[in-house]
Amino acid sequence: MPFSFCTFAVMSNIKPSLAKGTRDFSPQEMVKRNYIFDTIKKVFKKYGYAEIQTPSMENLSTLTGKYGDEGDKLIFKILNSGDYLSKANANHLSAMNSNALISSISEKALRYDLTVPFARYVVMHQNDIALPFKRFQVQPVWRADRPQKGRYREFYQCDVDVVGSESLLNEAEFVLIYQEALSNLGMTDFTIKINNRKILSGIAEIIGKPELIVDMTVAIDKLDKIGFEGVTKELIERGFTEQDIDKLKPVILLQGTNEEKLSSLKQVLSASATGLKGIEEIETVFSYVAGLLSDSKLKKPDLELDITLARGLNYYTGCIYEVKTNEAAMGSIGGGGRYDDLTGMFGLKGLTGVGISFGADRIYDVMQEVNLFPESAAAGTKVLISNFDREAELYALPLLQQLREAGVAAELYPSSAKLKKQMSYADDKSIPYVVLIGSDEIQSGILTLKNMHTGEQEKLSKDAIVDLLKAQQ
Amino acid sequence: MPFSFCTFAVMSNIKPSLAKGTRDFSPQEMVKRNYIFDTIKKVFKKYGYAEIQTPSMENLSTLTGKYGDEGDKLIFKILNSGDYLSKANANHLSAMNSNALISSISEKALRYDLTVPFARYVVMHQNDIALPFKRFQVQPVWRADRPQKGRYREFYQCDVDVVGSESLLNEAEFVLIYQEALSNLGMTDFTIKINNRKILSGIAEIIGKPELIVDMTVAIDKLDKIGFEGVTKELIERGFTEQDIDKLKPVILLQGTNEEKLSSLKQVLSASATGLKGIEEIETVFSYVAGLLSDSKLKKPDLELDITLARGLNYYTGCIYEVKTNEAAMGSIGGGGRYDDLTGMFGLKGLTGVGISFGADRIYDVMQEVNLFPESAAAGTKVLISNFDREAELYALPLLQQLREAGVAAELYPSSAKLKKQMSYADDKSIPYVVLIGSDEIQSGILTLKNMHTGEQEKLSKDAIVDLLKAQQ
Repeated sequence: MPFSFCTFAVMSNIKPSLAKGTRDFSPQEMVKRNYIFDTIKKVFKKYGYAEIQTPSMENLSTLTGKYGDEGDKLIFKILNSGDYLSKANANHLSAMNSNALISSISEKALRYDLTVPFARYVVMHQNDIALPFKRFQVQPVWRADRPQKGRYREFYQCDVDVVGSESLLNEAEFVLIYQEALSNLGMTDFTIKINNRKILSGIAEIIGKPELIVDMTVAIDKLDKIGFEGVTKELIERGFTEQDIDKLKPVILLQGTNEEKLSSLKQVLSASATGLKGIEEIETVFSYVAGLLSDSKLKKPDLELDITLARGLNYYTGCIYEVKTNEAAMGSIGGGGRYDDLTGMFGLKGLTGVGISFGADRIYDVMQEVNLFPESAAAGTKVLISNFDREAELYALPLLQQLREAGVAAELYPSSAKLKKQMSYADDKSIPYVVLIGSDEIQSGILTLKNMHTGEQEKLSKDAIVDLLKAQQ
Repeated sequence: MPFSFCTFAVMSNIKPSLAKGTRDFSPQEMVKRNYIFDTIKKVFKKYGYAEIQTPSMENLSTLTGKYGDEGDKLIFKILNSGDYLSKANANHLSAMNSNALISSISEKALRYDLTVPFARYVVMHQNDIALPFKRFQVQPVWRADRPQKGRYREFYQCDVDVVGSESLLNEAEFVLIYQEALSNLGMTDFTIKINNRKILSGIAEIIGKPELIVDMTVAIDKLDKIGFEGVTKELIERGFTEQDIDKLKPVILLQGTNEEKLSSLKQVLSASATGLKGIEEIETVFSYVAGLLSDSKLKKPDLELDITLARGLNYYTGCIYEVKTNEAAMGSIGGGGRYDDLTGMFGLKGLTGVGISFGADRIYDVMQEVNLFPESAAAGTKVLISNFDREAELYALPLLQQLREAGVAAELYPSSAKLKKQMSYADDKSIPYVVLIGSDEIQSGILTLKNMHTGEQEKLSKDAIVDLLKAQQ
């Protein structure tokens, strides 16, 4: 890390700032973020998923064209190194065409999501991986979106997918992964919504507008926000007739238990083989969930069939999920679904996949709002040993090391300082215990252990202090 | 993740590849990498260090000028979004001056190391952090270096630093952090080398060439590689006389124990107050290390005073470290030192810091070569339940969930398939146990547990299987 000192002087008046839309994470925030990621990852592993990582930078050609034109614009491109202008396309340059010029001055770009890199990974490593391939991936992605509250240019995605298995057991297990991971985080009131693309196709079929399935689902997906009237208006704008809407209405406004909804849908969709297949898939998923939970201590999930759920429909081919918390006014905290032909974009056809993701930033906000982070998720240093003079410092050194060898995070205040300063250091770092060592303590071998929460002080031997703090780990 | 299907067809013939100098990490590699990071982080925490993270992207102005001209060239710059050419400097553009144009078409860049972002962090959050501030940070950095064996364009740095404390206790604790972390990783034969910038200054002083300290240290730093003759040649090229070298020789070739070296150096440097201060600092560090270890089970570190050690000397002002493994032909696996005025580049003067880093990629290579990764560092799914037909599948579901609730990573093969296929899946994923469920098993309730290592099969009840596998966690 060769800083040149001359530069220091030149730079010294620059007040540093963060790049727009990015965040630092403090120790307190990191502990909480790690708590979320660790909890979720542990569940992924129990369900047989293994972690992979892909590079932050991909070839621009790997990413371009996968996210639509709007998406392409939001990809952060990396300027080629060296004399990049020497290879710049002269026509685009003289035309000052920023967009067209990109491909000749930028070869690499930052990952926009984890899905396309995963598809690339599967294709490149197809000879090394055993199918079904169950992987999870928790890494940052970057988007040149306009930053706003809750939307950042760098944020983590937390994806879990299986490719190469058509079994609906996977779909059922994702319901349980949501249930278990969110429960383990302390959430008690959330709904796992499920739908199936084939049901939506069936509905578009029976109203005789199969070609308008995307328009239909984009509209009904907004039912929550704009109500049935709003949906009606949008459907008409998108080419549906009043008659179509009459047929759609009972389906869109379907109420009741999952069983009741399925039973109604079976009648409505009786003429659509695709629609009936979708219903059968949902029923199979429900029966797998019931089987898995038949002898389980896990709380039954609040699993709701919601036929208005669409989520970027083009992409999904079977089941679709979305998770909503009811504990805070927050949108979706997770979603996913089945997609066929994930790797087709890279020339490997016919691989089906299904996966979900967790919205870690939103989960963080909910947990913060509802106060779900446990005390232990703030655990840093457990004990600070005070340092009043050279003699006490020398006396403290072996104790310091014994504490650490017992697995206790421990610090010795690194220089002799006033009690107040050392106590305030312990407070700032939320260190729960302080060992006080004065000349009395050194003589008697009986030290003072102060509990920073209660203010209580106890007289204890070195060994007793080590044992007491070790027992609390 | 809105893929547009039309694009799939267009892209389908593109064979994907990794961006040059970057790597994918497979499940097997991730488990090993996490083992290294987790082991090291655990030690950091025990010593009272807390984790922070900074964004991957920094303002280009935050990074420029901190790493010298060569370093600046190796920083990956991010092209501005939108119509970036509209703000491009017209003069630089018409002159086709790639380098000068950068600042008008790129505002952001990828992190080049963790030190400058840490300095920025400290300055920006100076009112929120308690000094001394003990932080660690494990994140990737990016450099546009020419890729070669062992050198990547994206790699992790693993840094631990304290700012705002002059105490040499910190220096001593870093020796123990190296010792404990590397020992916990299973390394048994490594040397922690230590030196002090003030000793090097003292040596330059006593030969009457204080202004040539950088030249002197750059030359003697190469002793290992080019021998004393090579060093002599380089010193002469760098402006030293034969007489200077005569004075330097006994110092450079200093042999013996640390005590013997210190005793010789005291005589040589008796006329240099700076040199003597450096010796005193080293002695203090040694005495802290001895104090910390006086009642410890930790193996004594192989700590060696090496006055040829320099490591980017401009940067360091006090102690300097480097760790070398003797188990494999590998360079340094870690290094660091004390630097004054870390945050001066951002206008906050007078903050001293000291820190070390671990070369995680090299540690990985050593551990791989010497076979130090424990079996448990390959632990993924513990048990696969076979799936031969619908009846067995249904029977397996509650067991699958019981295993997971007991903390056992478990999978049910997601569809009925031939035994061979399921066994080969278990083999590929190194799953140590398979539960076989056939119609006999379902009738008797006594299942077959196959140990995939030994090939042995045992007949056990469901509960016994759960207990057995749970006990192995």
